[in-house]
Amino acid sequence: MKISKRGQLMPSSPIRKLTPYADAAKAKGIQVFHLNIGQPDIETPKIMWDTIKNFSTPVLEYGPSNGFLSLREAVCQYFQNYKINLNPSDICITIGGSEAIMFAIDSICDPDDEIIVFEPFYANYDGYALSANVKLVPITLKAENGFHISDFDAIEEKISPKTKAILIGSPNNPTGTILKEEEVRKIHAIAKKHDLYLIADEVYKEFNFTPYPHFSVLQLDDPERVIVIDSVSKRFSACGARIGTFITKNEEVMKTINKFAMARLCPPTIEQVAAEAAYKLPFSYYQTIVDEYQKRRDICYDILASVDDIVLKKPEGAFYLVVKLPVQNSDLFAQWMLSDFNKNNKTTMVAPASGFYKSPNLGFDEVRIAYVLKEEKLREALDLFIEGLNKYRKIEDKLIKSLV
Amino acid sequence: MKISKRGQLMPSSPIRKLTPYADAAKAKGIQVFHLNIGQPDIETPKIMWDTIKNFSTPVLEYGPSNGFLSLREAVCQYFQNYKINLNPSDICITIGGSEAIMFAIDSICDPDDEIIVFEPFYANYDGYALSANVKLVPITLKAENGFHISDFDAIEEKISPKTKAILIGSPNNPTGTILKEEEVRKIHAIAKKHDLYLIADEVYKEFNFTPYPHFSVLQLDDPERVIVIDSVSKRFSACGARIGTFITKNEEVMKTINKFAMARLCPPTIEQVAAEAAYKLPFSYYQTIVDEYQKRRDICYDILASVDDIVLKKPEGAFYLVVKLPVQNSDLFAQWMLSDFNKNNKTTMVAPASGFYKSPNLGFDEVRIAYVLKEEKLREALDLFIEGLNKYRKIEDKLIKSLV
Repeated sequence: MKISKRGQLMPSSPIRKLTPYADAAKAKGIQVFHLNIGQPDIETPKIMWDTIKNFSTPVLEYGPSNGFLSLREAVCQYFQNYKINLNPSDICITIGGSEAIMFAIDSICDPDDEIIVFEPFYANYDGYALSANVKLVPITLKAENGFHISDFDAIEEKISPKTKAILIGSPNNPTGTILKEEEVRKIHAIAKKHDLYLIADEVYKEFNFTPYPHFSVLQLDDPERVIVIDSVSKRFSACGARIGTFITKNEEVMKTINKFAMARLCPPTIEQVAAEAAYKLPFSYYQTIVDEYQKRRDICYDILASVDDIVLKKPEGAFYLVVKLPVQNSDLFAQWMLSDFNKNNKTTMVAPASGFYKSPNLGFDEVRIAYVLKEEKLREALDLFIEGLNKYRKIEDKLIKSLV
Repeated sequence: MKISKRGQLMPSSPIRKLTPYADAAKAKGIQVFHLNIGQPDIETPKIMWDTIKNFSTPVLEYGPSNGFLSLREAVCQYFQNYKINLNPSDICITIGGSEAIMFAIDSICDPDDEIIVFEPFYANYDGYALSANVKLVPITLKAENGFHISDFDAIEEKISPKTKAILIGSPNNPTGTILKEEEVRKIHAIAKKHDLYLIADEVYKEFNFTPYPHFSVLQLDDPERVIVIDSVSKRFSACGARIGTFITKNEEVMKTINKFAMARLCPPTIEQVAAEAAYKLPFSYYQTIVDEYQKRRDICYDILASVDDIVLKKPEGAFYLVVKLPVQNSDLFAQWMLSDFNKNNKTTMVAPASGFYKSPNLGFDEVRIAYVLKEEKLREALDLFIEGLNKYRKIEDKLIKSLV
């Protein structure tokens, strides 16, 4: 009896793997500011709670495998705000954006097939790919370029006969970078030239602090090629609802997705009903949220930019940033912040960036910060982070030596 | 751009694939009795609804990847009723029993590995295996033996160097068969001899109409080998909740499962809270449910046993039976019942059994019946079924010829 190779290769989440150290700190009475996880603190819309409280049915039954029609209609209506025309049959409701990514990988890739990704990327992509025995082929982006693509030719160099798709995420988790329309079009041209699917994770669509509107791959005139991953988690501060959407106008792909959906029966019923109510919120709802996150982005950027030897371009969206630090091992730094640092019994938890890279030995001088705390706490957390960083820098050499 | 081989191979659910025919019948004003799907009609316990209505938190946050500790504690408490000692760390809360099966397959099998199953089996096993590129190796059981194992040597003949596990389901979906303790012990001895995992789907544990108590693989003294798949769906009539449990005392397996769980973040929050309340129900709750299903089992058995040329041993548990019919093609029969048969604008939908077999050309003379309707409706549905069957038998030859 053994563990499968894929089971052994599965990574621990870089966002969650330091949790035991945080728990230990809390057990010692230390308050931990969580900038490590994209768990928004904005209140879930009241209409979702009201809908849940008013939901009444004698039996909590299975729903349709591809989600309730009324929810899929509400999603179509929501996309009208972006002047994107969808039909309910273009949508499969999934168990979180997570499942939408898994379905995408499983439906277009067999074992040993490849998907091009840009690193750093949302760490769980690699977990889903590994569990499907699919290989992510990374193109490395740099903090110095604000994690924008500097060399489009590099994409084509990575394409092999095994390549099935290019996967992009914009606004990006973990970098906060937003691809401009021309960048999306350049990637699309490459996908088209090599006959690849173009998968776009657009769950942070609303979280856009740039003057130009979000450009969705659904606006490319290429419906057969394009797959969109979406989710209610961040948009409605409803991460625990586990409601996502898989969107494509490719009928063959949707037919396949629906078979995967049938196998796992259905998404959770109650949260679908709540999500439907949320999707009917007026568009002004999003502006309030975006204003709040933009303010926090500015706070993060201003505070961090003032620190010496840090590389950080102004993040453009989502609610994350990846900052390059003057450290050798950010895993150790993030852990040290929990186990060895505190000021007045307070410390800050961040996510080491190595877990967001596929290439070995990258990201060890970077961390991801999620600005999911309100202004006052955010400022305090960042001040602690900087104070810790300055202290850690002085002892890192000694610390590393002591561990060898 | 192509669909993956695994995507192409994914089967449609035998339970859901005839839904378009049912919808067409309903559109013509025909009432369809659903004996095709294991959607219980028993009311979901009020405590679950009350808990949901009273659940209050400003943000619907991510929960722990392996589920709330308080829910896992409640599951341990529930198992005490069976004198089975579990720790919360032996349990990972999954998104339905479905995900528990997927996690089991992914964590112990790599592509091309094999799992021994007994057919007919819960159809979705094959979907999960196919999506993981794992091969199910079936051992065929027969209606004439009440779908009990007649030849244990046949199991060993199917074991290859690629075999990683034996998967059993008891009480069984689709057959309603319950393995006796001695049968479980014989299977376990084989698993032990060949160093295989023993995975048991025990979601119907309470639905036992035999005089002997349910024997769980957790009662075997072999904690490293044993994995249990469980779910709240049927136990609490809460299929739409999507809450399952993966149970093992094998620490390496659980560590691996927790990595898969991390990748998909967490199970839905609200339903976990509701499930916790349900697991705290007194044990008498289950007896009421079992009595009701046992009554229905008796009705089904009595009505069907009176029909000529049918093979059906008395089912022992769950709320399904597989009956062998005097037909050549039960797919066609089940479809015909929806598209060409009705009496006073009423008809009955059943699940053709071919989809529950892995071996080709089996199950075409069998259907699965789920007795999930109350007595009066169940009697009416079965009378319609028999009337339709008798009519169909007379025209099947002609019908098949007309289709060739």
